[in-house]
Amino acid sequence: MGAALERLSASHIAQAVRSGQTTALAVIEGVIERLSAYDTLQPQAWISRAEGDTLRQKAREIDARVAAGKHLPLAGVPFAVKDNIDALGFETTAGCPDYAYWPSQNARLVQRALDAGAILVGKTNLDQFATGLNGSRSPYGAPRCVFNRAYISGGSSSGSAVATAAGLVAFAFGTDTAGSGRVPAAFNHLTGFKPTKGRWSTTGLVPACRTLDCISVFTEAPEDAALIDNVVSGYDPGDDFSRDLAQIEHPMQRIGVAAQLNWCGDIHSEYLYAKALERLKQMGFDLIEIDLAPLSAAAALLYSGPWVAERTAAIKAFLKSSPGSIDPTVRSIVEGGLTVSAVETFDGIYQLAGFKRYADQMWDQIDALMLPTTPTIYRVREMLAQPFALNANLGLYTNFVNLLDMAAIAVPAGFRPNATGFGITFMGPAGTDRALLTLASQWRGHTTYPVPELDLTQEFRMDTIKLSVVG
Amino acid sequence: MGAALERLSASHIAQAVRSGQTTALAVIEGVIERLSAYDTLQPQAWISRAEGDTLRQKAREIDARVAAGKHLPLAGVPFAVKDNIDALGFETTAGCPDYAYWPSQNARLVQRALDAGAILVGKTNLDQFATGLNGSRSPYGAPRCVFNRAYISGGSSSGSAVATAAGLVAFAFGTDTAGSGRVPAAFNHLTGFKPTKGRWSTTGLVPACRTLDCISVFTEAPEDAALIDNVVSGYDPGDDFSRDLAQIEHPMQRIGVAAQLNWCGDIHSEYLYAKALERLKQMGFDLIEIDLAPLSAAAALLYSGPWVAERTAAIKAFLKSSPGSIDPTVRSIVEGGLTVSAVETFDGIYQLAGFKRYADQMWDQIDALMLPTTPTIYRVREMLAQPFALNANLGLYTNFVNLLDMAAIAVPAGFRPNATGFGITFMGPAGTDRALLTLASQWRGHTTYPVPELDLTQEFRMDTIKLSVVG
Repeated sequence: MGAALERLSASHIAQAVRSGQTTALAVIEGVIERLSAYDTLQPQAWISRAEGDTLRQKAREIDARVAAGKHLPLAGVPFAVKDNIDALGFETTAGCPDYAYWPSQNARLVQRALDAGAILVGKTNLDQFATGLNGSRSPYGAPRCVFNRAYISGGSSSGSAVATAAGLVAFAFGTDTAGSGRVPAAFNHLTGFKPTKGRWSTTGLVPACRTLDCISVFTEAPEDAALIDNVVSGYDPGDDFSRDLAQIEHPMQRIGVAAQLNWCGDIHSEYLYAKALERLKQMGFDLIEIDLAPLSAAAALLYSGPWVAERTAAIKAFLKSSPGSIDPTVRSIVEGGLTVSAVETFDGIYQLAGFKRYADQMWDQIDALMLPTTPTIYRVREMLAQPFALNANLGLYTNFVNLLDMAAIAVPAGFRPNATGFGITFMGPAGTDRALLTLASQWRGHTTYPVPELDLTQEFRMDTIKLSVVG
Repeated sequence: MGAALERLSASHIAQAVRSGQTTALAVIEGVIERLSAYDTLQPQAWISRAEGDTLRQKAREIDARVAAGKHLPLAGVPFAVKDNIDALGFETTAGCPDYAYWPSQNARLVQRALDAGAILVGKTNLDQFATGLNGSRSPYGAPRCVFNRAYISGGSSSGSAVATAAGLVAFAFGTDTAGSGRVPAAFNHLTGFKPTKGRWSTTGLVPACRTLDCISVFTEAPEDAALIDNVVSGYDPGDDFSRDLAQIEHPMQRIGVAAQLNWCGDIHSEYLYAKALERLKQMGFDLIEIDLAPLSAAAALLYSGPWVAERTAAIKAFLKSSPGSIDPTVRSIVEGGLTVSAVETFDGIYQLAGFKRYADQMWDQIDALMLPTTPTIYRVREMLAQPFALNANLGLYTNFVNLLDMAAIAVPAGFRPNATGFGITFMGPAGTDRALLTLASQWRGHTTYPVPELDLTQEFRMDTIKLSVVG
């Protein structure tokens, strides 16, 4: 069996179902077929999934609602939900079987998507408790890059990215505290949109770092992310961290870029970033060099500073009662928060205030910032051998974003010779979500990348190529 | 020697000096005379003070600048500065002689006041490291209520309140983290204005709780505080906690009040609050009852929760090197922060987010909140006997204000039979500073209280009266 990668577009499906060009049932039949095919390769993308007949039944209901003239902006659009977000009918595991519970209601965003006519296919795998940027920290198996399964999928929203990239769903909710909604987008050639903190409700989310957590979305294109944003964004009085943010929609013309970047030895990433800079120039943007050092220092605070204690706070009862049930790498990180003091926490808050001041002044000079989403990618076996250091590398250009109150959108920017995706991320200050979505659309309109075939037979083919080229 | 209390008005003095009705020199000669007279009663209001000849020299310079046509909005206005705020030429002690240092520049606000023509008389006493609401925690002596010196002045800005209330200066900068700029205003029949966090620069302030600290001002009337606000407010790029806040100037018509208050047994305060409610009704305001419980719960977080560790963070090196140099009560509080964990800190931040959400919804119902500034007042000897419990009582209605990002202005609302001042405080959400100043002016325009004579001879006279009435 072989199959070329065929991505699903949320906006195309909704438009086709709403206009009668196709039916939700026809769409879901295709999905069921693809799910079954892809299960031979990466069943570990999923933690739980709806039965085929349940999906067909939901699709028939959507078709009936469309026929009845209901306004359904996501009519018949199949989607997935990261398994740290509540969805009725599925256990929420957060990637930890012993932690699992049956939710009593849908997360607010899931409910919004369902109300808009989307069809929930299942719950996706993740780095346990959303702690990781690589995808290898799950007892449900390690999802892998869809283009080269020797390589990590990226995480923590590993399954959501794989399900979207393999064309099993048209969009998938992830979460993004440190970069979990952007890193896997890069590796799997997806759009990964992380709204400003508080723009999308987190009601029904298992917290990682409550002051920083965002729900994010993976889609084929920025336009699809914009459609989802239309459906799910808005103030939630029940979420203490929801915000009623002013929307900043001025066009983004001045783009900040960094002169010196740490590529962790990956010359292919470096080359693709240089190409991206060139492309932006051709598109007519003003590229302005910024000093990345204060942002990098802020990024370091996330795991080396007090914020790791938020992860401890989030599961402290479980950590005490069931330490053996937690992935050893994750547990080691979360236990680190136990020894951090309040004084260190406030010292970290003061340091962050200084970095935030730097960022505020930076936003006077530039409208958006463009950086590589990650410096490089690793093989699963490399990641397992050095779980802390390599994971830290993946967050070099993502970890500071929520700490410094930015919105971000990760977009594809090519492929390495080993067929893994390379991505760039556009970032802007809080409230620039729509402007960033527009910028990402412009980017996509001016870039096309020949997408490697999604080969269903030769798992390590691409790895061989990688070895011959850069090994 | 006997003298009736004669307050100085910053706006009247500035206007008179600028228009030539009087001179800065004449004003300062009066000040020098009053300083000398009041030194026989409460020299402990001051930690350091300019020499008379220095003051005369400054006044002559101001007169020359006025004569030269310079625009000096505070021309010739004598002022004092709490001794945890830097002023060139004075040691900054923060109420702790062994901590003292010579600053290399003026605090930004002090510089602004000087540039506007104000004359700095000296540095005032405080509860050490601004930790306290009563004024008894200083090795420089305990300032006392100007109307009855058996009673506490209130703190931590004790000396600033006494100096203003005794007519030694026309305004004095205090600081206000928990209520230090409001509590002493109440006891001494003053206006105490605490702007929104970040509205006034804190550059040059010895921090207490950096995320909460505000510089505040004591004046005779709200109009004077508005004048100071005009001179000193504004974004400071050098202060990481400075904010460029939108100004909310809608008229305040709906005033939130509390039905059930804890008066700590003080029936006189209760009576005076009832009278204040009556007066507000007569003035045509809509009084709307609010539930104080979530605000009280937030208030409890300040000393019983993680924020005490900010005080520890602020002086941690000194606490380690010179524990014996710290006031025992203050040290005991500050040491409490050493054992608080990061996990507890984030748990506190989450709790606070919930209370903040309550407050945000409250501001949809009301424009301002009016509460007693304190439930009661205590004698100095009572305070020394129970330094923690009684101090906590003083903060019941002030401690939550900075945590919940409110602006506040304390105004006089009568006298107890023992001649100590009773005050109320108007509070509003961040950015309502000018609207609150206007509201406070309206209040003052509709209230007059016969001010007890400032008797310079019989220190404990009023205490005797208190004993006969409520003792």
